[in-house]
Amino acid sequence: MVALARDAVARRDGEIKAFCHVAAEPEISAEGPLAGVAIGVKDIFDTFDMPTTYGSRAYTGHRPMTDAAIVALARRRGGTILGKTVTTEFAYFDPGPTVNPHNTAHTPGGSSSGSAAAVAAGMVPAAIGTQTGGSIVRPASFCGVAGYKPSFRLLPTTGMKHFSPSLDTVGLFAATISDVALFAHLLTGRPLNPEPVDITSTRIGIYFCGELETANAEMQGALERAAEAATAAGFRLVAINEPEENARARAAHATLQNFEAGMSCGPDLALFEEQLSDKLKLVLRDGLATPPSVYDDARRAAKRGRGATRRLFDEVDVLLTPSAPGAAPAGLSFTGDPRFNKLWTLMGTPTVNIPFFKDKSGLPLGIQAVGRFGQDLRLLSVARALEQAFAA
Amino acid sequence: MVALARDAVARRDGEIKAFCHVAAEPEISAEGPLAGVAIGVKDIFDTFDMPTTYGSRAYTGHRPMTDAAIVALARRRGGTILGKTVTTEFAYFDPGPTVNPHNTAHTPGGSSSGSAAAVAAGMVPAAIGTQTGGSIVRPASFCGVAGYKPSFRLLPTTGMKHFSPSLDTVGLFAATISDVALFAHLLTGRPLNPEPVDITSTRIGIYFCGELETANAEMQGALERAAEAATAAGFRLVAINEPEENARARAAHATLQNFEAGMSCGPDLALFEEQLSDKLKLVLRDGLATPPSVYDDARRAAKRGRGATRRLFDEVDVLLTPSAPGAAPAGLSFTGDPRFNKLWTLMGTPTVNIPFFKDKSGLPLGIQAVGRFGQDLRLLSVARALEQAFAA
Repeated sequence: MVALARDAVARRDGEIKAFCHVAAEPEISAEGPLAGVAIGVKDIFDTFDMPTTYGSRAYTGHRPMTDAAIVALARRRGGTILGKTVTTEFAYFDPGPTVNPHNTAHTPGGSSSGSAAAVAAGMVPAAIGTQTGGSIVRPASFCGVAGYKPSFRLLPTTGMKHFSPSLDTVGLFAATISDVALFAHLLTGRPLNPEPVDITSTRIGIYFCGELETANAEMQGALERAAEAATAAGFRLVAINEPEENARARAAHATLQNFEAGMSCGPDLALFEEQLSDKLKLVLRDGLATPPSVYDDARRAAKRGRGATRRLFDEVDVLLTPSAPGAAPAGLSFTGDPRFNKLWTLMGTPTVNIPFFKDKSGLPLGIQAVGRFGQDLRLLSVARALEQAFAA
Repeated sequence: MVALARDAVARRDGEIKAFCHVAAEPEISAEGPLAGVAIGVKDIFDTFDMPTTYGSRAYTGHRPMTDAAIVALARRRGGTILGKTVTTEFAYFDPGPTVNPHNTAHTPGGSSSGSAAAVAAGMVPAAIGTQTGGSIVRPASFCGVAGYKPSFRLLPTTGMKHFSPSLDTVGLFAATISDVALFAHLLTGRPLNPEPVDITSTRIGIYFCGELETANAEMQGALERAAEAATAAGFRLVAINEPEENARARAAHATLQNFEAGMSCGPDLALFEEQLSDKLKLVLRDGLATPPSVYDDARRAAKRGRGATRRLFDEVDVLLTPSAPGAAPAGLSFTGDPRFNKLWTLMGTPTVNIPFFKDKSGLPLGIQAVGRFGQDLRLLSVARALEQAFAA
């Protein structure tokens, strides 16, 4: 299995540029639930045996003393770290060289660009990424793969390059919902393998918010087709209007993120100013200039949003929204817009990109499913049933 | 000011052994609110210009690429990092060489051993530490200084060696409540400088829990004297019985801590097994063997405790408990018991050690004041008024 992945990388990665480092002699375990599984790891995570650059020139050639927690977990389970995948600079917006396997003139999305593209191109069956705004679900949508952002703190962040610790969430990529759920199950030992769903008693909410109108026509069409397919399969469809608390929480995301980024990456701004992109310096300076009282207000807005979100899930089992405003934009300089993802990162709720629909040009259009905090198995089970309904 | 601190270190630290590294030529800023303030930084935080060992032989000579967020924050404010202070191994229980300045045959407490002792010995006016169980309040109590554990996430943890990310809390040391509050204020720019307190309308709760009976007679006497002094000063004293949810949350602390430690330090167990202490290996293995469902139960217990704790603060403004079961134990092999601290670390509530009382042998007996989450200014203001009442 690992040899096949290495061959695929040798064949495809010259074009896709998903990996920034491929292990010369990857350790292959014969034991453990992930034995034989080749895994791509976003280069935002420390690895003791491979360079770790965080997508930044400031860290060229950096070799950490130890592994990130999620890397060591994957190794303990028998998985093989095949290499490090491209991340935007510090997992913010400045892109790496990765292209979209569906159309190499388009962005794969970010910040987990390489992890999404490596899976989409069939180079690895599984990859690890992170999301602070929309960095798992958006590239998964653009690349047409399943991207799973678990409930906050289900997967450990220790040893990642933190940007905003109260948002930074570790997540996973695989080809389909079944695959990503199996990967999560084997990695964590948690019961995350999808279960059969009693479809007629399952309530699917279509989430109406101001942003929905800003999705392009093809994405709005995909969401409508998703709703129709779910109805046809027997799910109970419900229209959910965004609570005011959630709109305010979404608006607070940038304040919270930037203040924490100023703290977390302020040391790098002080030491490596010359090597950071203007985009990154701008957000760090914005964060450093934000008064603590404004940050505290943002935290309170997030907390009220979590309360409102909890109440939403008394009415529905799973919410559906677009995963992104549309398909992957043309060009490699912009990794796309996380406007449909950042609220759920802030809420800490599990989300997953369901790949299926495509636009006229054949580029993927993902549907984002959102579950109740801590109900990851339920979300993945319903998402798999929906994935099957879309294809029916 | 920095020169005075350097002189004090040269004079005293041969005996106290609070520092594991003293900056050869510390950067001295003429600007910023902390200009001229010499700060000791627990060696659990990364520093780009000083060795960072996390108290572990595995990291001897380790030199991180960048500063921890709190270190960079202190530098931005003009503070001078005078050196790194001794921590127990990975801020767990295996002690360093630091002794208690009040009696060098006794432990200074841990894990922030060096930070507490450096302030107590008058070598620095301010120091930075962390608490995962009782690692700020306990050494502050043993060393007779003010130790302030802020509300969870008030100070940034990025760049510390994480043990249990949902417990790891950055905190501060200084000689008195006024001093530690001023340090917090100047460091963060938050309004944390104590305000006058309307004493007669302030409700002080004495917190009765099972652990209280396990405090020794002298500590129980100190708490009684604290209550009497508060009453004499005009505070409204209230007896608060521990809610069952809090007792269960305290019991869940170890599960939560150990599971997360297994994740966070699992990489070190895999790479540096030979260099880790048996004590540490035991807790990491315990954590790695804990099923996720048991960890999730502990998280739920913590959440219910937070709800019960929030309701407690509808009845009182500040809770008082012992900071430790008694004065600093004799010997250097055991850093003392965090049983009075770990609940509040898990609750995320701000706490501060009020130094004043002493036992017959002259060793300090600290009183722990606990405030409502996010009400750090209120806690520090009441704690200062109590400190004055104790001395009256």
